[in-house]
Amino acid sequence: MPESAPRIAVIGGGQLARMMAQPAIALGVPLRLLAEAEGVSAAQVIPDQLVGDYRDLATLRQVTDGCSVVTFDHEHVPTEHLHALEDAGVACRPGPEALVHAQDKIVMREAMTRLGAPQPRWAVVSSEGDVEEFGLPCVLKVSRGGYDGKGVWVVRTTEDIAEPLAASEAAGVRLLAEELVDFRRELSALVARAPSGQAAAYPVVASTQLDGICHEVIAPAPDLDPHRAAQAQQLALRVAGELGVTGVLAVELFETSEGEILVNELAMRPHNTGHWTQDGAVTSQFENHLRAVLDLPLGSPAPRATWTVMVNILGSADPEVGHLYDGYPHALARDPQLRVHLYGKDLRPGRKVGHVNAYGDDLEDVLERARHAAAWFRGDLGNDSD
Amino acid sequence: MPESAPRIAVIGGGQLARMMAQPAIALGVPLRLLAEAEGVSAAQVIPDQLVGDYRDLATLRQVTDGCSVVTFDHEHVPTEHLHALEDAGVACRPGPEALVHAQDKIVMREAMTRLGAPQPRWAVVSSEGDVEEFGLPCVLKVSRGGYDGKGVWVVRTTEDIAEPLAASEAAGVRLLAEELVDFRRELSALVARAPSGQAAAYPVVASTQLDGICHEVIAPAPDLDPHRAAQAQQLALRVAGELGVTGVLAVELFETSEGEILVNELAMRPHNTGHWTQDGAVTSQFENHLRAVLDLPLGSPAPRATWTVMVNILGSADPEVGHLYDGYPHALARDPQLRVHLYGKDLRPGRKVGHVNAYGDDLEDVLERARHAAAWFRGDLGNDSD
Repeated sequence: MPESAPRIAVIGGGQLARMMAQPAIALGVPLRLLAEAEGVSAAQVIPDQLVGDYRDLATLRQVTDGCSVVTFDHEHVPTEHLHALEDAGVACRPGPEALVHAQDKIVMREAMTRLGAPQPRWAVVSSEGDVEEFGLPCVLKVSRGGYDGKGVWVVRTTEDIAEPLAASEAAGVRLLAEELVDFRRELSALVARAPSGQAAAYPVVASTQLDGICHEVIAPAPDLDPHRAAQAQQLALRVAGELGVTGVLAVELFETSEGEILVNELAMRPHNTGHWTQDGAVTSQFENHLRAVLDLPLGSPAPRATWTVMVNILGSADPEVGHLYDGYPHALARDPQLRVHLYGKDLRPGRKVGHVNAYGDDLEDVLERARHAAAWFRGDLGNDSD
Repeated sequence: MPESAPRIAVIGGGQLARMMAQPAIALGVPLRLLAEAEGVSAAQVIPDQLVGDYRDLATLRQVTDGCSVVTFDHEHVPTEHLHALEDAGVACRPGPEALVHAQDKIVMREAMTRLGAPQPRWAVVSSEGDVEEFGLPCVLKVSRGGYDGKGVWVVRTTEDIAEPLAASEAAGVRLLAEELVDFRRELSALVARAPSGQAAAYPVVASTQLDGICHEVIAPAPDLDPHRAAQAQQLALRVAGELGVTGVLAVELFETSEGEILVNELAMRPHNTGHWTQDGAVTSQFENHLRAVLDLPLGSPAPRATWTVMVNILGSADPEVGHLYDGYPHALARDPQLRVHLYGKDLRPGRKVGHVNAYGDDLEDVLERARHAAAWFRGDLGNDSD
């Protein structure tokens, strides 16, 4: 690329960085990757790369040298390093003051309280007595370092409390207690926000989790009250603005049995609940993340189909399941409209190794196609078989 | 990628190879690139690469080592090298017997005659007398090595004949004379064909050339008689089958004032007249090229919008025009639905450096949006300004 296109440093070599590479190619914007190991998902597809530890400031300085901005595949870069990079003139997007709300669940809860955002009842706890006072059953979460269901416990009895307490102590992180919400389903409100303040809100989607891992997303969320959808979008835009988020922000929400929405989690990067946008929206979350990070005008978040369904492909526990590639002859022939996204990862039980998107006018048909394909790839057709 | 996904060698580091990288990322299929120089368009985005000369067999052997198939960004690899690679067990897709029809215009004309395909009157010529006997005015083309209008002359007088004759002699290639067709417009019928024989035909498009370079494509071709469109698709599928093409075949056609279609050129690779498919079709030509090359089931070639328009961005002759990136703030803000594809190339007058796609229901609107954006990027709003 000619010299005046800004170079973006991306910290972390997972599938989110991998999927940023596609719009970066189209936009003609060079990426420089800090990968945690050779050959990881994004390192397979981004030539300009360095292998190193994101917890090491010297490494971060090296990978951002000559880059005007840095963004992230994950939220684990230490806050003090981000401040050091900003002091050196590298724009961190999102910046450390925003990112801390995705890094630390207690900081996030405090911010939601400050903003008056609807959320479950919560408290910081540090003893069995604290938890009992908060009330059982409840959910305990380590404040930092949890992901995909790890570091989260549903505690129903006094005996359940010991493990989370020990884990938080061992990890040296605080423990958060949250009300166990009787939710009807999970929703996600995804927005992109540029440093200029310009923002775009994607349609609110419904997501299904299995064992704490995002499994299936329906865009838009079926039968969602339009006022509730607008409320969720406004909430996400307000959170993005108030916290100064740049790039993609995903606000994961509970929809309660009464139809209320409550903030569950925040993520400040392209998010699993936005993968449907690759094939289902005018501008994908990955492209809008890059545009936001570059402070370029954002692309339209409008849907391109009536319904788009994303289903994750998880590694199977069945040792008989061969290579994901072996799933192509049937999956592609069965559904010529299917969109497949594989991450270049080795199969391990329960590991996210790819996803499929399907779209169309008939939700039942779209769901069936996406579910069948994902089950086919993971070699587990279960009750979805045909 | 786990080890059983086949690796594809791609010969040539231009924008076509660059745009194959995006679906390769999604499919989880690794590419290995032979680039003609460091840092060329595709070399910026494909990590596994070798810099070398595609006319050197040892280099070709090196880049295809460990690859089950090889495909191409251009049609210039010598036929004898392709045979040598096939003898060594590397599947060339397209293979040498097919590719020669895209390499040698006389071989192509002979094949079209054999197939009974509609085409302009033609003859091989080697002297002024031959050309006069063929009849003036006519078009003279070097049989091999021409591209983007180079190696093509419209000759109207006896004096015009000397230059093409000298050029063909100097290059050591034969000269082809073709009837100067009074055409209404140019059409393109694009198909993908797998080694299994499975094939998919994209909607027939109308293309506009400027100085021999593809400038604008409208998909589908407006006001095209449906029977004529089907005839063009059937012709392209038949050519692909009869010549044994694997991958994408573009059949460039003249539509005459009488509404007949005549074969103008063949290209056996993703083609400029198919760039609209990146944003306007269910499966892009680049993805279907890779699927065909891998003998995987092809994706749907159906359009996703009523109209899609592609306009190329050409380098400006105006030295005041800055970097392409400078075009983003206005172009993206003006049209949040615009899709931009830049090639990472330095600006040179008349050089293809990118393209834009726009889509929608109103052709006039879509045309205006795409034309404005392309003109804006090249700093030349001319009569398209607003």
